[in-house]
Amino acid sequence: MIIVARKDVTADQLDHIRERVEAAGLRTHVSRGETRTIIGCIGDEARLAHIPMLSIPGVRSVHPIMRPYKLAARDFSADRTTKVQVGDHAFGGAACLVAAGPCSVESQEMMLQTGRAVAGAGATLLRGGAFKPRTSPYSFDGLKDEGLRILSKVRSETGLPVVTEVLDPRHAERVAGHVDMLQIGTRNMQNFALLKEVGQLQRPVLLKRGMAASLKDLLLAAEYVMSRGNMQVVLCERGIRTFGAETRNTFDLAAIPWLKLETHLPVVADPSHAGGRRDLVAPISFAAVAAGADGLVVEVHPDPETALSDGEQSLTFAEFNGMMSDLKAFAEAAGRTLHRPQAGA
Amino acid sequence: MIIVARKDVTADQLDHIRERVEAAGLRTHVSRGETRTIIGCIGDEARLAHIPMLSIPGVRSVHPIMRPYKLAARDFSADRTTKVQVGDHAFGGAACLVAAGPCSVESQEMMLQTGRAVAGAGATLLRGGAFKPRTSPYSFDGLKDEGLRILSKVRSETGLPVVTEVLDPRHAERVAGHVDMLQIGTRNMQNFALLKEVGQLQRPVLLKRGMAASLKDLLLAAEYVMSRGNMQVVLCERGIRTFGAETRNTFDLAAIPWLKLETHLPVVADPSHAGGRRDLVAPISFAAVAAGADGLVVEVHPDPETALSDGEQSLTFAEFNGMMSDLKAFAEAAGRTLHRPQAGA
Amino acid sequence: MIIVARKDVTADQLDHIRERVEAAGLRTHVSRGETRTIIGCIGDEARLAHIPMLSIPGVRSVHPIMRPYKLAARDFSADRTTKVQVGDHAFGGAACLVAAGPCSVESQEMMLQTGRAVAGAGATLLRGGAFKPRTSPYSFDGLKDEGLRILSKVRSETGLPVVTEVLDPRHAERVAGHVDMLQIGTRNMQNFALLKEVGQLQRPVLLKRGMAASLKDLLLAAEYVMSRGNMQVVLCERGIRTFGAETRNTFDLAAIPWLKLETHLPVVADPSHAGGRRDLVAPISFAAVAAGADGLVVEVHPDPETALSDGEQSLTFAEFNGMMSDLKAFAEAAGRTLHRPQAGA
Amino acid sequence: MIIVARKDVTADQLDHIRERVEAAGLRTHVSRGETRTIIGCIGDEARLAHIPMLSIPGVRSVHPIMRPYKLAARDFSADRTTKVQVGDHAFGGAACLVAAGPCSVESQEMMLQTGRAVAGAGATLLRGGAFKPRTSPYSFDGLKDEGLRILSKVRSETGLPVVTEVLDPRHAERVAGHVDMLQIGTRNMQNFALLKEVGQLQRPVLLKRGMAASLKDLLLAAEYVMSRGNMQVVLCERGIRTFGAETRNTFDLAAIPWLKLETHLPVVADPSHAGGRRDLVAPISFAAVAAGADGLVVEVHPDPETALSDGEQSLTFAEFNGMMSDLKAFAEAAGRTLHRPQAGA
Repeated sequence: MIIVARKDVTADQLDHIRERVEAAGLRTHVSRGETRTIIGCIGDEARLAHIPMLSIPGVRSVHPIMRPYKLAARDFSADRTTKVQVGDHAFGGAACLVAAGPCSVESQEMMLQTGRAVAGAGATLLRGGAFKPRTSPYSFDGLKDEGLRILSKVRSETGLPVVTEVLDPRHAERVAGHVDMLQIGTRNMQNFALLKEVGQLQRPVLLKRGMAASLKDLLLAAEYVMSRGNMQVVLCERGIRTFGAETRNTFDLAAIPWLKLETHLPVVADPSHAGGRRDLVAPISFAAVAAGADGLVVEVHPDPETALSDGEQSLTFAEFNGMMSDLKAFAEAAGRTLHRPQAGA
Repeated sequence: MIIVARKDVTADQLDHIRERVEAAGLRTHVSRGETRTIIGCIGDEARLAHIPMLSIPGVRSVHPIMRPYKLAARDFSADRTTKVQVGDHAFGGAACLVAAGPCSVESQEMMLQTGRAVAGAGATLLRGGAFKPRTSPYSFDGLKDEGLRILSKVRSETGLPVVTEVLDPRHAERVAGHVDMLQIGTRNMQNFALLKEVGQLQRPVLLKRGMAASLKDLLLAAEYVMSRGNMQVVLCERGIRTFGAETRNTFDLAAIPWLKLETHLPVVADPSHAGGRRDLVAPISFAAVAAGADGLVVEVHPDPETALSDGEQSLTFAEFNGMMSDLKAFAEAAGRTLHRPQAGA
Repeated sequence: MIIVARKDVTADQLDHIRERVEAAGLRTHVSRGETRTIIGCIGDEARLAHIPMLSIPGVRSVHPIMRPYKLAARDFSADRTTKVQVGDHAFGGAACLVAAGPCSVESQEMMLQTGRAVAGAGATLLRGGAFKPRTSPYSFDGLKDEGLRILSKVRSETGLPVVTEVLDPRHAERVAGHVDMLQIGTRNMQNFALLKEVGQLQRPVLLKRGMAASLKDLLLAAEYVMSRGNMQVVLCERGIRTFGAETRNTFDLAAIPWLKLETHLPVVADPSHAGGRRDLVAPISFAAVAAGADGLVVEVHPDPETALSDGEQSLTFAEFNGMMSDLKAFAEAAGRTLHRPQAGA
Repeated sequence: MIIVARKDVTADQLDHIRERVEAAGLRTHVSRGETRTIIGCIGDEARLAHIPMLSIPGVRSVHPIMRPYKLAARDFSADRTTKVQVGDHAFGGAACLVAAGPCSVESQEMMLQTGRAVAGAGATLLRGGAFKPRTSPYSFDGLKDEGLRILSKVRSETGLPVVTEVLDPRHAERVAGHVDMLQIGTRNMQNFALLKEVGQLQRPVLLKRGMAASLKDLLLAAEYVMSRGNMQVVLCERGIRTFGAETRNTFDLAAIPWLKLETHLPVVADPSHAGGRRDLVAPISFAAVAAGADGLVVEVHPDPETALSDGEQSLTFAEFNGMMSDLKAFAEAAGRTLHRPQAGA
């Protein structure tokens, strides 16, 4: 950490600043410039995190040098990317993996039908919400335990692993008993009680970026999970909230290569929430894979027009199959493989 | 709701759109313009919420007419503002109320000392976090149950009511047993499991706006609490996340008068998190009250330089007392009173 | 346009609203719902643009139905995409075109060297700024007329067409005399005096999106140019300003497919300003092309470390050549060709 | 400036970094920490502005220490606030000054009528646009030279000084010949050709913050004007563009006290564009003055319902007079005076 002193800092104030830093176990080095005095702090910067530097008299600005996350930082892993295994496939390997399915679990039949269709098109993971976070208390909020039961059933009938969102720390263990991967949704990215809970379970976590979360915030949220012992975290870019009103969210494409440089965790994209419109799903998907994403999470519904949630952004089976067919060339251009069963849907 | 059809909509598609709307119990009225056909939907718009209109063939755009919240809407209350009683005072009345105290409960002694100081300066509510949401898992996250115990003790010794944040639905009832008002923090504004839980308790709720929450989202979060039976909600503007990097957040001043026009719930401001800097707390406070805020939530610490969190933005006792002294004239200019005990600290 | 009346609208107010609309030459149609009264306005909505509807007593909200741009709208052109010819190639055709070169023209030698290198790698257009907009008045702001002279010279020596930014309406004609395409920069996207001026010239225009411009604003800026008679406009997404601080700007990837659906004008991307970092240029470029961009504008410099501006985000010749080599597969996956000369640099 | 080296920086790279810095005339000081090496640069940081540090091998991050503006910085002026004289009054003194008038000059009669009304209510400056920047090329864009003639006439008849916007560097001198203060609008805050032009005129400048301009960008725009010799700049906060859609812009209240701490230039607020709604103008005005603003710019129109632009956010004469009457107490609470003629309108 580098501390820049105010122009009018006194010798006593400087001494006091140094004492606070040294009391935390770091060394200090003072450089007096023509117009500014600078205090370099040498040692483990994390030990300074508790000190409100800007409230110490004489301090003008503070410049952290170290990253605030450790386990999530690229340096932590010798491998290029951590592999997160879900069923027979792993996020973070040569294959670009696709999770697909409806926003909400609506019935066993529709989940079975969807599972078969998306698996036929190349998805290796079925998504579907049993507990749904909804902006309005009057909207459909999921089948809950009945939804979990359906997911279990569909999983055993189709052999397709399942990912679903967990909203409440009280449900985490129960949900983990029914599915293969736990999703932490956008609105809960900084629900620390929930992050700690899934950090104690041995289930892969799909961590979606918060609507106003910086990429550092996202990595710190992953760090919450990892610091509790669960290292199987997949990060998901799904669009952020900006002034742009033409699309549901603003898909922050550059987050993907930035994260790939900064962390060893796999990174996937959710093109459905990003664009919020069916006709934007394919181009956003192609772009995400071109930019290096390890996979996608795509909303697919047997009949989007009757979907209980997110119908506007859900693909039909035929649209999904067409998109997967076109995606193959982009995955290959990116040096990736894309799973496509012999007899596609 | 008004539905605008695509230019090339067919008669069959139009019929289908009308059937979907009428099946939900509304009437439709079709206007054919020179370039567009418009379907007006007459009746209870809420019944259309489940239909993904944009995924119905022939629909180009959809224009909701009704507000998505009911209990929180101004129309719901004949009174100008709902009064939310906390201890001897009520938010939403003639008095502008101030809650003050440290970010975190650090010890019984500092809370007692702070409680007496802020009460002496005119605060009618003591704030202090026992459970702290922190962006990094390595930061101090509160004394937890010990913090609650301290708050109970200080409350009984000073007679000052207490507000503290609740982070986890599993703690809600326990926290409510120790304090007078429950705070839902910024990062949990859309933690719906938590909102439902505090909606079932009979404790006033201080609901802080999320960093990327629209004002409609904020009112819908209040609606979650209210629709469970707890009507005692106070809304808090505390700054939003924008491109502006000079202040910790961007204080959305106009949210205050907008909310006062739109809802009957009291509205307060948090100048400490908004600006993130001690020297911005007073001007933001004056402005909030000038714009019609029903109160303030201010961070105050006996020794900000040693605070375990938010020291940069915490006022000293003397600074808080000075601010309250200056605030009086602004409150009066706004037609409000400000509580100031005879023998101020 | 649809006008929603206030709940308590009087019959006189309703009559007055209708009179204002009808005086502008439109017909009105009133629907009385249970809770709201709605006035549909039938006819040319543009005639209502001058009326401040929300200031008319009894009006609660206004819902425009028509797009505010005409010439830029997809409907205007029967072709899928307008072709904008620059030199031997056209933006908007089967080929994905790349403009490349330094941020600033620094000398004739470096421009010649760069022109040859980027042409060898497949660029069909040389970029370089003679007049530079700089946030600080103390930064290098271009060689100005000497820069134009260099661009002319390099253009005639290499045969490569040239694009450069015009900042000042007084320079527009002079700049147009030296180059093949005029760039309107981000900070000038709503410099209407400048837009009108280039609208009167017969030179293709590269119109960069403003940092806070909605996509509708961008299309209206294009409409300024087109409504003066110059239909040769290429739109450029280059990142917007959001809370995201990890990259220089937030590249709004979804703007590309959204624009391709909404307008007939070609759309290109600037990956250099979007990411602001050399190692993000290639992934953003691949993504833009995968999402359907008609081309790219890339900063390339013989020695980025000594560049007078934007060195951090400029590719070396070798990096540019490598990127173009990898780009080919993405262009082909998108059904596009990419120009690559036989004997690459 | 402080340069942080990459973990794996080589001795040769370190030498090269130091050479680049020292060649610019600064001294360097290297601190080797346990995990990072830091190069402190001692001397005039502005000399490093041309060097793209991040493109030098071995550099990981760069931390500027000095402010990029000089003339606009608070340090530059011994006075607390620079006084900018316009007519008989000065911005930046004890009085809080109000400029008022319509968005557009529509006729001589309406300007005379408005001038008299706003002067009667206490305004000391008449505003009105002769050249109007409009998002759409099809909107009314001002009476232009006829508008200037009207402003001159009204100014001489009423004695009220006049402020109007200048859009085009070719008009700057002509406009300055007719009015007392030149406004640079939001969309032109970084129109550097225009800033340089008004920097050469001896007319006070009202510089409005750009929609996506950081406060540092705003001060650098002021620096453009000042560095050309014109030190009479008044800064204006008018709202920024964020995700917030409930108000036309997001009024960044904290910008006012932040600017007052950072610069010696007067700071005013435009509550009309900030809120975009007539009923938000008064509370935003009160708040701005409470937070320390030196004045206001308010849209007032004889008949907002027929205004050719911005009718939704324009006050009637009676509303403006009422607002000024209420404003007095807030100005006084802020230690300011507010001009109110004996016989108010």
